[in-house]
Amino acid sequence: MSFQEKLQQLVERVEGGIACVLMGSDGLTIDSYHLADDQTPFDPATFGIECTGLLQQISTITQRTRFGDPLEFVIRSEHHTAIFRFLTEEYFILLLLTPDGNAGKGRYLLRTASSSLREELFT
Amino acid sequence: MSFQEKLQQLVERVEGGIACVLMGSDGLTIDSYHLADDQTPFDPATFGIECTGLLQQISTITQRTRFGDPLEFVIRSEHHTAIFRFLTEEYFILLLLTPDGNAGKGRYLLRTASSSLREELFT
Repeated sequence: MSFQEKLQQLVERVEGGIACVLMGSDGLTIDSYHLADDQTPFDPATFGIECTGLLQQISTITQRTRFGDPLEFVIRSEHHTAIFRFLTEEYFILLLLTPDGNAGKGRYLLRTASSSLREELFT
Repeated sequence: MSFQEKLQQLVERVEGGIACVLMGSDGLTIDSYHLADDQTPFDPATFGIECTGLLQQISTITQRTRFGDPLEFVIRSEHHTAIFRFLTEEYFILLLLTPDGNAGKGRYLLRTASSSLREELFT
């Protein structure tokens, strides 16, 4: 199964799924899937690129303050929920949901997909 | 009820609560409460200060990308869960939990406490 098929499956399996983006911490998008009928002016891939710096800073802060290695972080607004899952120091995955989407299931699916994505990124 | 009593109540009402910090976006702590029996080397107030820059960047990014005004963000590691709730552009509240703490209840309590904290900050 291609990266895009996996991202599509993640979006389709979670209630309220809008888009999924697989990215490098250098800000380059490896692959993405975005529901065709999402007509909002918000662009998930651009949002992911803009957030790349945040992920690097979170890694630095969590190590310096003994918070522990970051596994995920979530940003919520009235319009969107964004779940970022750290795959390695170099890669992360972003799942975007509607505000009433099933974030618990989204987090679960990202966690379980992480190991197979990680394996594929390094083979 | 003082700020510290409110922060203590938040920590004590949620399973796995460790600490709660009320902060300005300038990095100054207004008040905090930390469970006396938490003996880990991690310091919640220092973590809050270190994250101040992140919150400002999240505000900028979410506005620029049309994600919507940020309400909260959450960082999880193997050792801690940190829930940040934006009160205004100038203030936020941070609730720290153990990784198996009840984050759903923590988010609910922060949301419901927000309006009374906001009122007190401006009176």
